[in-house]
Amino acid sequence: MIKFNESEYRENLKKQINEIYTGKKIADEIFQEGFENIFLIGVGGTYAVMMHFAEIAKQYTNTPVYLEQAGEIILTGHKHFNKNSIVFMASESGDTKEIVEFAKYCQDKGVRVVSLVSKPESKLAKLSNWSITFIPKGVEFEYLSMIGIFYGLLNNNGDFEEFDLLLEQLEQNLIDGLVNIQTKFDNIADDIAKKYYNSNYMLWIGSGELWGEVYLFSMCILEEMQWLKTKSVRSSEFFHGTLELIEKDTNVFLLKGEGACRKIDERAERFLKEHTDNLVIFDTREYRIENIDEKFANILSPIVSTVLLNGRLSKHFEANTGHSLDIRRYYRQFDY
Amino acid sequence: MIKFNESEYRENLKKQINEIYTGKKIADEIFQEGFENIFLIGVGGTYAVMMHFAEIAKQYTNTPVYLEQAGEIILTGHKHFNKNSIVFMASESGDTKEIVEFAKYCQDKGVRVVSLVSKPESKLAKLSNWSITFIPKGVEFEYLSMIGIFYGLLNNNGDFEEFDLLLEQLEQNLIDGLVNIQTKFDNIADDIAKKYYNSNYMLWIGSGELWGEVYLFSMCILEEMQWLKTKSVRSSEFFHGTLELIEKDTNVFLLKGEGACRKIDERAERFLKEHTDNLVIFDTREYRIENIDEKFANILSPIVSTVLLNGRLSKHFEANTGHSLDIRRYYRQFDY
Repeated sequence: MIKFNESEYRENLKKQINEIYTGKKIADEIFQEGFENIFLIGVGGTYAVMMHFAEIAKQYTNTPVYLEQAGEIILTGHKHFNKNSIVFMASESGDTKEIVEFAKYCQDKGVRVVSLVSKPESKLAKLSNWSITFIPKGVEFEYLSMIGIFYGLLNNNGDFEEFDLLLEQLEQNLIDGLVNIQTKFDNIADDIAKKYYNSNYMLWIGSGELWGEVYLFSMCILEEMQWLKTKSVRSSEFFHGTLELIEKDTNVFLLKGEGACRKIDERAERFLKEHTDNLVIFDTREYRIENIDEKFANILSPIVSTVLLNGRLSKHFEANTGHSLDIRRYYRQFDY
Repeated sequence: MIKFNESEYRENLKKQINEIYTGKKIADEIFQEGFENIFLIGVGGTYAVMMHFAEIAKQYTNTPVYLEQAGEIILTGHKHFNKNSIVFMASESGDTKEIVEFAKYCQDKGVRVVSLVSKPESKLAKLSNWSITFIPKGVEFEYLSMIGIFYGLLNNNGDFEEFDLLLEQLEQNLIDGLVNIQTKFDNIADDIAKKYYNSNYMLWIGSGELWGEVYLFSMCILEEMQWLKTKSVRSSEFFHGTLELIEKDTNVFLLKGEGACRKIDERAERFLKEHTDNLVIFDTREYRIENIDEKFANILSPIVSTVLLNGRLSKHFEANTGHSLDIRRYYRQFDY
């Protein structure tokens, strides 16, 4: 498989699973200290990751959880943001402009920050009350770095009593499970990339727990790293505008999830199957992590989808376009 | 001016301004009855309109306000949704599938619904505890139909003490103000449409109070009514992916607002001016409603921008493409 070193991947996942317990410990500390609400703050890819947890929060907990853009909240403020808030933010580099600025803003206001970073010595880490480390080798590591802290808080709050069972199952089955998914999907990813790598427009659709994944892959991978034009739209919203664009040769990519919103993904699927010949479906149900209970499928679905999309598909796009995923013409190339 | 009947427009605006007092009365009733939180529910264009009020809520009130997709919340539920919630929903036809289904869901659960409808006898109106009428002649009427109820609740709550002043200024100045904006922008809209009507990709950018407008015009007008491909992205998010698509000939439309997020719109503007020759800027500051205080500019900015975009620009796109704004190939043409 291209760009996949199985032994290194296994080792990294093992480290990341261990790091879940750092998050769990922080959750216990925060619960002891007390808090009123949670602010999930991000920009670009980290905003997309936070979208998933905002969706889960809505379904699982009575704790008020607010999802906000780092670049906007620093300008607008937020009436529910106060000294009893807990802020979650992530930055792979640890120095993302908007994130670091908001971390400083939090420090000035005495608001506690939990950060997800890959560099423990980074600016963001230094501006945080607690940090959790993720390995910068795929978005699945970032999702995993949230598991201990996020579900730990929910568990303390009485909203997620299966927490220990989830951790046990992840420890026992996640590594093999994700390796199998990478392997199983690799050839399919190659076929998809071969067919669509020179597309001048791709429509990406999904919903609920996976909407952030759709948003991330279209904007942060295809647009940012491959310079390919996309539109992303929620499955429910698709029927209120974007559907009118569909013709037999429109390239459409539908991500089907495992949660309650799967029903609207299926509605989109039925429509699309009739009206375009270029439909690609990624169904996380066909790539479940083996030996993990079905009741966890929705909360693990973004880990599965990011292994499919970022783990495999992006690498095959790169191989076919010959356009390195690492090249940028603007981002971090100069000030703007 | 094409598709603009000034005397009819003035008369309609007068009726809509009067209807603000229906909303104000409902706000007083709801405040007397008591409520715990507000759910702004929409789909497509009505979701976009609600985005604006969610943004305002965040900045102005301690009342918890949740913005949700009608098509998703009915499947996922929401932990904060309960008998003390107040739901706001709009539907021009009064029978939008997702909206009517959620209104029934609310009725079943005993949750109070305030609806914005253009037909008082519609399904949605019948499933609502209160209805406010808007004239289906432009999105500005829909925004206006929210003014009395939304700011009335905020005022009762002590969050918007300038309410009476706002209503007084709207009564005295809104009609002339909007007519002047239509007139002032008409030739400019014609020039923009002439240049871009056959574009195969348009990137639309905006933020804060106007992000919903960007979302609405790109998806519900250009995609749905003109079958033109678009991507819409927030000004802050633009810098984290989509910017890499920009080339000298990329067609970009930037909507500059009046609120705190104007600063990031200006950041996008500076970047775009350097990197594309096809940049169109709509600055609501250049089209303020005359004789209304500056402190209301941010809350009136979507009314201004929708007059520019939906009021004028869409009509000139239609005139240039020869593609009627009323034609649909799928929506409401058959079941799916």
